[in-house]
Amino acid sequence: MTGVNTYTTEIDVRFRDIDAMGHVNNAVYATYIEQARTEYFRDVLDADISSLATVLASMSVDFRRPVELTDGSVTVELAVADLGTSSVTMTHEIRTGGEVVAEAEATLVSLDPDSGKPVAIPDEHRSTIESYHGI
Amino acid sequence: MTGVNTYTTEIDVRFRDIDAMGHVNNAVYATYIEQARTEYFRDVLDADISSLATVLASMSVDFRRPVELTDGSVTVELAVADLGTSSVTMTHEIRTGGEVVAEAEATLVSLDPDSGKPVAIPDEHRSTIESYHGI
Amino acid sequence: MTGVNTYTTEIDVRFRDIDAMGHVNNAVYATYIEQARTEYFRDVLDADISSLATVLASMSVDFRRPVELTDGSVTVELAVADLGTSSVTMTHEIRTGGEVVAEAEATLVSLDPDSGKPVAIPDEHRSTIESYHGI
Amino acid sequence: MTGVNTYTTEIDVRFRDIDAMGHVNNAVYATYIEQARTEYFRDVLDADISSLATVLASMSVDFRRPVELTDGSVTVELAVADLGTSSVTMTHEIRTGGEVVAEAEATLVSLDPDSGKPVAIPDEHRSTIESYHGI
Repeated sequence: MTGVNTYTTEIDVRFRDIDAMGHVNNAVYATYIEQARTEYFRDVLDADISSLATVLASMSVDFRRPVELTDGSVTVELAVADLGTSSVTMTHEIRTGGEVVAEAEATLVSLDPDSGKPVAIPDEHRSTIESYHGI
Repeated sequence: MTGVNTYTTEIDVRFRDIDAMGHVNNAVYATYIEQARTEYFRDVLDADISSLATVLASMSVDFRRPVELTDGSVTVELAVADLGTSSVTMTHEIRTGGEVVAEAEATLVSLDPDSGKPVAIPDEHRSTIESYHGI
Repeated sequence: MTGVNTYTTEIDVRFRDIDAMGHVNNAVYATYIEQARTEYFRDVLDADISSLATVLASMSVDFRRPVELTDGSVTVELAVADLGTSSVTMTHEIRTGGEVVAEAEATLVSLDPDSGKPVAIPDEHRSTIESYHGI
Repeated sequence: MTGVNTYTTEIDVRFRDIDAMGHVNNAVYATYIEQARTEYFRDVLDADISSLATVLASMSVDFRRPVELTDGSVTVELAVADLGTSSVTMTHEIRTGGEVVAEAEATLVSLDPDSGKPVAIPDEHRSTIESYHGI
């Protein structure tokens, strides 16, 4: 982990998150980390994620144990693992009841809205990320 | 890729798959490969995925270019990259209009329904997978 | 039903549509009729539903019997029950295997994109709807 | 409204709830009232909704104004409008920032798990519903 500080948020588990196996569906973990990212953009960068020219380049999840409706909520702890020129890699620990249930990684790339090509992360976002995480 | 043959299915893009950015949401790719896996279990293994003691151990997606509603559908081509004692790793090429839009990998683990511990993939599934993919 | 003709489309049931009860989740029926509506706009009105200033004013679903993953797909038959100045009410029969599994109704309102107030349905859409459905 | 008391819960709006129009998708309202119902079963009836032989017979939603991601959360206030022998009709007021954004109704039917036919609501649930709502 590059920085020493992390961002943490809690997400309520919904009945609709559960699939026919009786557990939170695997795709919903991507939604949980997306929600953590959305709140991170709002709370830390003071930015609306849907208005930024940012795309997800990759995502991965390692599942440790199933989450059930009775778990009530999950906590997502987001850290910045790598802060490149135009990309940022975030790692996530998803926990419930203090136990790690999944670990996930996501790499975002900043784009030029006109050309659609990678472009440097805006300076004010970079400096805010660095100072927030103690990078 | 371990085997020489692949399994291919086509999935219609829904309006609900699109998010506020105007593209298929990242979590929906996990749903697309889950759907391909479900149909693979049905068509190749003659099995109902929701009645098997199988869990997803990990999943990853590399996004190449956004998919839009007007793309209409995606094609998922599923290959078996690794067939272990109790686990199988599937790789997926997601295409639309002949173009690769994402690549994804998923590792499934066969569990003992009583103990919840990993257990050998049933022999008939193993031999069907081997013969189907030419492993 | 106002018109004599209907629009019909088929929608594949996904594993993710199924909830912890083992049936297609109730909210997914709203997605099925939204998908039928999206394809109707594309095929009949030659319009992209997400670029039109149209909102859903109301929606209702009567559930007849559960739909399961093994049903494979549902057929949605869409009719126009009422064509007002600024609104259109569509009725839907959702079937699987020839059997009606749900009936649904949705009322759409055409809006002025600037004021956000109801506005007359564009003439070319009105006349296309009338001629398509034989109203 | 039959009873004088209501049950209220708050549900966080997720980025994934938003569709290509930039608003909470219509189907998600069904998920919001399902979530309120799930928590009502848990908190008021001390029951797990997914283990009860209860089905949704009908659902309707009247949309008043769009909900956006920046609204943060919605409050769902659930009342019992009708308590029949085997069915219960719940009405819901969905609010954000104190403003009503939608009203919804859902009718649940209690089933015999063996025959699948409607059966009387269990006495302990009936009496709890009556005393909770002041019916």
